[in-house]
Amino acid sequence: MIPDSLTQIQYDTIYNVFSLVIASQLFTSIFLVICLPRVLPRYRQAMTVAAIVCGIAAYHYFRIFSSFTEAFVTDAVGGRGNYTQVAGASFNEGYRYVDWLLTVPLLLLELVAVLALARKVQSSLLTRLIPAAALMIALGYPGEMASDNLTRGIFGLLSSIPFAYILYVLFVELTRSLERQPATVRKTISLLRLLLLATWGVYPIAYLLPGIGIDGSDAWVGLQIGYSVADILAKCLYGLIIYRIARMKSFSDDQTFADSELSLEDASSLKRSTLSN
Amino acid sequence: MIPDSLTQIQYDTIYNVFSLVIASQLFTSIFLVICLPRVLPRYRQAMTVAAIVCGIAAYHYFRIFSSFTEAFVTDAVGGRGNYTQVAGASFNEGYRYVDWLLTVPLLLLELVAVLALARKVQSSLLTRLIPAAALMIALGYPGEMASDNLTRGIFGLLSSIPFAYILYVLFVELTRSLERQPATVRKTISLLRLLLLATWGVYPIAYLLPGIGIDGSDAWVGLQIGYSVADILAKCLYGLIIYRIARMKSFSDDQTFADSELSLEDASSLKRSTLSN
Repeated sequence: MIPDSLTQIQYDTIYNVFSLVIASQLFTSIFLVICLPRVLPRYRQAMTVAAIVCGIAAYHYFRIFSSFTEAFVTDAVGGRGNYTQVAGASFNEGYRYVDWLLTVPLLLLELVAVLALARKVQSSLLTRLIPAAALMIALGYPGEMASDNLTRGIFGLLSSIPFAYILYVLFVELTRSLERQPATVRKTISLLRLLLLATWGVYPIAYLLPGIGIDGSDAWVGLQIGYSVADILAKCLYGLIIYRIARMKSFSDDQTFADSELSLEDASSLKRSTLSN
Repeated sequence: MIPDSLTQIQYDTIYNVFSLVIASQLFTSIFLVICLPRVLPRYRQAMTVAAIVCGIAAYHYFRIFSSFTEAFVTDAVGGRGNYTQVAGASFNEGYRYVDWLLTVPLLLLELVAVLALARKVQSSLLTRLIPAAALMIALGYPGEMASDNLTRGIFGLLSSIPFAYILYVLFVELTRSLERQPATVRKTISLLRLLLLATWGVYPIAYLLPGIGIDGSDAWVGLQIGYSVADILAKCLYGLIIYRIARMKSFSDDQTFADSELSLEDASSLKRSTLSN
């Protein structure tokens, strides 16, 4: 799968994209920790998990980055040249699975935690979502490591069963719990679910590419960029939307808190809209 | 672009300047986080973003610093000598673009956030400024990576369209929103905009240098120093001015807060000036 050689532009592109992911994940994580006091205590669990997810992803991208830079050596003198694979080194795609095994269940936990549902409803959702997420990743791994397309196809199929179940819980069961949420929050949560569906959709597509004969160095570079963009959206943007939901819910729960956090104009308009309800 | 060799003085200069940037960005970032409680909650968003911007810049300068030290090897014995490029290593200018892709939109976010405008005005400004900023950087990157001057020129020209649009929004549209700000705040914001214009002006000039035949090791050293100084002013000084605006606005919003934060003499003179209004 990993190509034997890369051009200077291909090498630089991946190098910079991986560094972009590290910076995005690391600083979204730090940002979310700093912003904890800016939501009410009952929403800090979700924010903390969002920060931890981005932190775990940053750690794995440090590993992926070194694995990449150590896997290739250049014949360039003066900056321009080709990169060839170092004998005895190889780029480790498995880091991604280790990352997902930890972060994917936590991403679902964030989503449920920020709703601040009754404990019973929350644990009913989580005891189904989290094992399904772990199973989905664990079943994908043997397929990714397999060298033949049959094994790859079988495990891909098995892995999509828990994925379908997660979608069912999020789009059917969770919808029932959303009725009590404020209208703006409901809208943002729908957005969050769509983001989850769109970004998670990238991974099975990337998984299937070698099976349908799309290979070679361009495909591989495209794949790494695709994974990187999906990881930024699925973790950083997702975490920032969680923060937004937590802020909206904090303001709707507590007018005094909203007064101190919002601009003077927004605070008074929120007060008017609350009084008129 | 990167020279084949550097003198000891050239090498030491860049080495020390890069280290100066790391120290400035890292500790401005830490300073701003520590100072968060010294402004009212509604201004902490702007301060947090300012701290994150400096943190991201510090991260990238760590990378740029290692990329630099790994790219050259010395023949010096006992301290003085020439530095020549290591075969197979290259100084990665792309880090700057990755940095700007993240920090430039955030710098505009800081500026708008510290004004604590009504949500509607704020989101109207940001939905235009942030995509324009990202587009400006993304269009510059292929030009920077190109080896011929034509491609460099075309992308440079394309990239200056969103730059002009950003200046229009900041100097024309934003001015309308400044009317309600206290007079001292208006003055400091004008200063901040001029700082932004002056420092951002360094980047396109640096971009054009190779096109007009200014090259060689002296030009390259000058360019790195120019970028470094611009990065310190555009991020650290800029962030500290944001902090100053946030303090001024906090005092004008809340007399009790001003009483506890200011010297006894300043607090009573602020009280007199507020009463006389």
